[in-house]
Amino acid sequence: MVVVMAPDATEADLAEVVTRVTGAGGEAFVSRGESRTVIGLVGDIDRFHGLNLRALTGVAEVVRVSTPYKLVSREHHAPSTVHVGEARVPIGPGGFTLIAGPCAVETAEQTLQAAQMAVAAGASLLRGGAFKPRSSPYAFQGLGEAGLAILADVRAETGLPIVTEVVDAHDVELVASYADMLQVGTRNAQNFALLAAVGQAGKPVMLKRGMSSTLEEWLLAAEYVAQRGNLAIVLCERGIRTFEKATRNTLDISAVPVCQSLSHLPVIVDPSHSGGRRDLVVPLSRAAIAVGADGIIVDVHPHPDVALCDGPQALVDGDLRDLAAAVRNLPPLVGRTPVGAPLRVG
Amino acid sequence: MVVVMAPDATEADLAEVVTRVTGAGGEAFVSRGESRTVIGLVGDIDRFHGLNLRALTGVAEVVRVSTPYKLVSREHHAPSTVHVGEARVPIGPGGFTLIAGPCAVETAEQTLQAAQMAVAAGASLLRGGAFKPRSSPYAFQGLGEAGLAILADVRAETGLPIVTEVVDAHDVELVASYADMLQVGTRNAQNFALLAAVGQAGKPVMLKRGMSSTLEEWLLAAEYVAQRGNLAIVLCERGIRTFEKATRNTLDISAVPVCQSLSHLPVIVDPSHSGGRRDLVVPLSRAAIAVGADGIIVDVHPHPDVALCDGPQALVDGDLRDLAAAVRNLPPLVGRTPVGAPLRVG
Amino acid sequence: MVVVMAPDATEADLAEVVTRVTGAGGEAFVSRGESRTVIGLVGDIDRFHGLNLRALTGVAEVVRVSTPYKLVSREHHAPSTVHVGEARVPIGPGGFTLIAGPCAVETAEQTLQAAQMAVAAGASLLRGGAFKPRSSPYAFQGLGEAGLAILADVRAETGLPIVTEVVDAHDVELVASYADMLQVGTRNAQNFALLAAVGQAGKPVMLKRGMSSTLEEWLLAAEYVAQRGNLAIVLCERGIRTFEKATRNTLDISAVPVCQSLSHLPVIVDPSHSGGRRDLVVPLSRAAIAVGADGIIVDVHPHPDVALCDGPQALVDGDLRDLAAAVRNLPPLVGRTPVGAPLRVG
Amino acid sequence: MVVVMAPDATEADLAEVVTRVTGAGGEAFVSRGESRTVIGLVGDIDRFHGLNLRALTGVAEVVRVSTPYKLVSREHHAPSTVHVGEARVPIGPGGFTLIAGPCAVETAEQTLQAAQMAVAAGASLLRGGAFKPRSSPYAFQGLGEAGLAILADVRAETGLPIVTEVVDAHDVELVASYADMLQVGTRNAQNFALLAAVGQAGKPVMLKRGMSSTLEEWLLAAEYVAQRGNLAIVLCERGIRTFEKATRNTLDISAVPVCQSLSHLPVIVDPSHSGGRRDLVVPLSRAAIAVGADGIIVDVHPHPDVALCDGPQALVDGDLRDLAAAVRNLPPLVGRTPVGAPLRVG
Repeated sequence: MVVVMAPDATEADLAEVVTRVTGAGGEAFVSRGESRTVIGLVGDIDRFHGLNLRALTGVAEVVRVSTPYKLVSREHHAPSTVHVGEARVPIGPGGFTLIAGPCAVETAEQTLQAAQMAVAAGASLLRGGAFKPRSSPYAFQGLGEAGLAILADVRAETGLPIVTEVVDAHDVELVASYADMLQVGTRNAQNFALLAAVGQAGKPVMLKRGMSSTLEEWLLAAEYVAQRGNLAIVLCERGIRTFEKATRNTLDISAVPVCQSLSHLPVIVDPSHSGGRRDLVVPLSRAAIAVGADGIIVDVHPHPDVALCDGPQALVDGDLRDLAAAVRNLPPLVGRTPVGAPLRVG
Repeated sequence: MVVVMAPDATEADLAEVVTRVTGAGGEAFVSRGESRTVIGLVGDIDRFHGLNLRALTGVAEVVRVSTPYKLVSREHHAPSTVHVGEARVPIGPGGFTLIAGPCAVETAEQTLQAAQMAVAAGASLLRGGAFKPRSSPYAFQGLGEAGLAILADVRAETGLPIVTEVVDAHDVELVASYADMLQVGTRNAQNFALLAAVGQAGKPVMLKRGMSSTLEEWLLAAEYVAQRGNLAIVLCERGIRTFEKATRNTLDISAVPVCQSLSHLPVIVDPSHSGGRRDLVVPLSRAAIAVGADGIIVDVHPHPDVALCDGPQALVDGDLRDLAAAVRNLPPLVGRTPVGAPLRVG
Repeated sequence: MVVVMAPDATEADLAEVVTRVTGAGGEAFVSRGESRTVIGLVGDIDRFHGLNLRALTGVAEVVRVSTPYKLVSREHHAPSTVHVGEARVPIGPGGFTLIAGPCAVETAEQTLQAAQMAVAAGASLLRGGAFKPRSSPYAFQGLGEAGLAILADVRAETGLPIVTEVVDAHDVELVASYADMLQVGTRNAQNFALLAAVGQAGKPVMLKRGMSSTLEEWLLAAEYVAQRGNLAIVLCERGIRTFEKATRNTLDISAVPVCQSLSHLPVIVDPSHSGGRRDLVVPLSRAAIAVGADGIIVDVHPHPDVALCDGPQALVDGDLRDLAAAVRNLPPLVGRTPVGAPLRVG
Repeated sequence: MVVVMAPDATEADLAEVVTRVTGAGGEAFVSRGESRTVIGLVGDIDRFHGLNLRALTGVAEVVRVSTPYKLVSREHHAPSTVHVGEARVPIGPGGFTLIAGPCAVETAEQTLQAAQMAVAAGASLLRGGAFKPRSSPYAFQGLGEAGLAILADVRAETGLPIVTEVVDAHDVELVASYADMLQVGTRNAQNFALLAAVGQAGKPVMLKRGMSSTLEEWLLAAEYVAQRGNLAIVLCERGIRTFEKATRNTLDISAVPVCQSLSHLPVIVDPSHSGGRRDLVVPLSRAAIAVGADGIIVDVHPHPDVALCDGPQALVDGDLRDLAAAVRNLPPLVGRTPVGAPLRVG
């Protein structure tokens, strides 16, 4: 059962709902989206009916949700837009958002150059990893806080809000102090401690699909974030693990429209990590736009041959023209307008 | 090792190459494409070098091919176009071909109505199954030859060449006597007797990917067809089997550009069988066009609720406008021109 | 709905049931097992009830079966034993049957040596392929009828009944004229024309699981065989296709007890093709016995380094002692007695 | 490159190796197993050769390891035994260890009863979850520290050392203060922060395979633990995610012998979570023993119908006799002796 609050509901209105529900032996999870706040109720449905919550001040609706994920369900909820950074770059229906940047932050110069490439391709958000989850303990694990500082400098220089990964619940506060959007990676898709922590961080979250997550598991992972109070979540399809090894992962392009029908959250695609090959990034980007994704997130690197992480999938200068053309020309054919770079971009 | 014949090579020229190769203890497989004939050589490469085949009349080139599939490899071979039917409807680079029709032929009226829907959506080829491979022996297995006769009647009425499945090597002659293009389905992707038989039938072949075939296995299946003499093969990606059950199969959209880089054969997509859901057909069709497929093959049915096979994935009248718009507007953005209906279509 | 005939039912009794069912607009599929004959009914259940079939002479029972596979279902049917060859080597509950031999028949000498190895390991049936389905058209495709003749000679010499694969519906009669048991391979698991043909051949059938077949699809494939009249079917788990590439396939050991609970057919395991590695064959054989399989089928070869097919997975002389010990000692711990070699074995 | 220390090497000997390596610009990871301490070197191999480490006091060997996982590799390292708890219950070659207990700790009474069931089945270690990673945020998440206290009480009562899961890096110290062995679950198989934390906790670790982890990824996850100093790791195969849904996961039984050939770590099997069905637990346990696993971990529950977690897969009293018989009778046939309960068990 979900209580949808009116846009003008006050904190006192919220508190009253929570008090009544807990008074009836239930639990109430308040989750704040940009357009509305919802309260998920867990407990004895029949007792909740007796509370007559619908009559309380500030309550717009009390609805039943049939899916196991209550707060992120598409039932009774129009598609959401998530805004990122001071520039409030939107990700959501009607728009199309390009996020680009280096897989890993290596140096200030490399990151700035990559950001300039991102802008050239039409990006409005900068991606870049300072904490890198790597299969081998001997692989480059990222620059840590030094990498975050570089990202902040490049943001100051370019105006692009930054999206960066957090891999440990206890780094969330640190990363959130630099980042505009927190990314949870595929290997942490069911790291519930981390999901709960990012749900409390007060920053938008990009939640990558686990490489073997079903859509339901993925949406339940989002529900963990939402349950801690944060509905500003963007889902990112990045390929699943299958028998086929011609690509690094198998991009499950169908997941985009299916998730958009199941959840009100925006869904974007990572064509770089799904294919794992530079020559596939632009074709897969086109497919993602055409299928109706709300955005894509793409690796770019000024010198992929010396990249410390995933060089073979990073776009180079020569590819940007094709990507930019796709991002400019295709979205209008599916009823979307490309989201421009924030105004400060120079 | 592959011998590429000149466009004006004669049968005598071909015979001379074969004679020399077999005289040297090798095997020679002649495969005729539309633009050129190639001869695959199997045996002792060093002895073949000694034959000096390049000097023979009618020989354009003698090339080494590094892939295990020699005749369908993209090495030394530009992308092919396959033409179907008397109307010579093309499938290949530069164009975009829509194939549509009922999953199964049920009645003359249903088939004609479906064909009219196909034309309305912009199709230039008609699909329809008379022999249906079904998981259960108790499911509708198709009308057999009566279904082929209905297809032929509808072709006479609409001018659309027909694509239909063959499921048994010993039906190939019968099916080829009606069909313009022979389809081999996913369950027969490694039915080598059937592949060999369609390779000798003198009609273009549409080869669906096995639901658990790797790209290499798929191309080797095409090589079985090519080895029997027929290079007029179109590959069809139709989804693979993975852990995800939200869709009937997982459309491997990346397979399109990867196969186009590995093989000169055209590659199309079946958005109906991969998703298994009507609401996904148009989004996945858009993705297929945008990723660069040479065509798509789509189920349509005048009354899907009473369809004898796969009704839930068939498009209905109301969906055709969206499909037609996608087929008309998207291909130009990826450098392709929609292939129009054959002239006789009335 | 299934009609179970009494053990002493006559052909006339059977015919009477069929006549009544077809007279009521239904279809009747007679399937003969060793212990009893059953008749599967398809059509209007209510009309069948009106026929009062239970009262007919020779009818033991009329039962409803809830699974989509009627004739091979475990409902109302105790586990079956299948007997192979003149020696009537049993495969089924209470026993444990070792089938061994070369992957492919190459020469008379190699096949005889492999058969002697099989006997040394405790085998009571000889496997060997004369028709080989190979991913590449350039790989060794088997000796064909010459290979069948070698197998027959080795049977004459050793007394071991022979199990051999058939890959094309129209070879069934030929192969059945030599073989004691017909094998349908993983690539033909949904080649319904072939399944129907082996169902009419009058010989026991070993049906390998398709590499991406669900258990239900596998049992429906068996139903195709049964529906054509033959209930003497043995299921063979041989590994499925997954993301893990450390082994050639992933042996789904759980499939053995699950299938035994769903179907009355015996279930055996192929530890050679599932692992694809010699060092795994004995451990996986032990696992198969311990999990309760009715038998195993193992590749052996006198000289695997020069084998024309799958040499890396064939056991050699030095491994036979371990295999023999496992086959002798483990079955009693799961309530089974190893099936000895046929008497004629010298 | 790995430096193997002699059994009598001192801390000073270790320190000297580390000093030399870091002095040469490399990194040295000291990992302490029960039988020997090894030091993994990362950096410039050529410079390490110049250090002549082999000549240092306390150094037994300096070896090259070809696998990406250096410390857990089977190269130059005999199979390890891990001992758990004060009772030093062994898991490793020559023995066979049964771990049993409730999936989740619910009450003191339920846990004690489950422990008594475990003992009856022949267990020498008690499993039980106090922190439960659940796909849904609305599912029972475990009792937390109260559950740990119950486990400690039951250990005091029965003498069984306890194995329990930790799901967050920052709970490791707390959990390690109660537990004898720390379990890392399938969803955290690539939660590298957690792996590093358990590597420093000074307690043996049971590392479950990720549901989509390749064997190499799994061993690299173990390497994360080892790199932080702890070689007392037991690998646990618990089924992988595949297309087949007849079982909850697909038990990859082949992973046992393959991992034992790649790594010196013991490998056990979880037949409860892989199958997800009570009726499969005993057959799969038998298969695990027969394939050569070093142990199994099994769910038992006094009243599975009211279990808060995974009731359908828990064994009940009536099943224990079969499990006990398998654990007693099968290991000797594969050269193993069942590990008895610790002496204090009453």
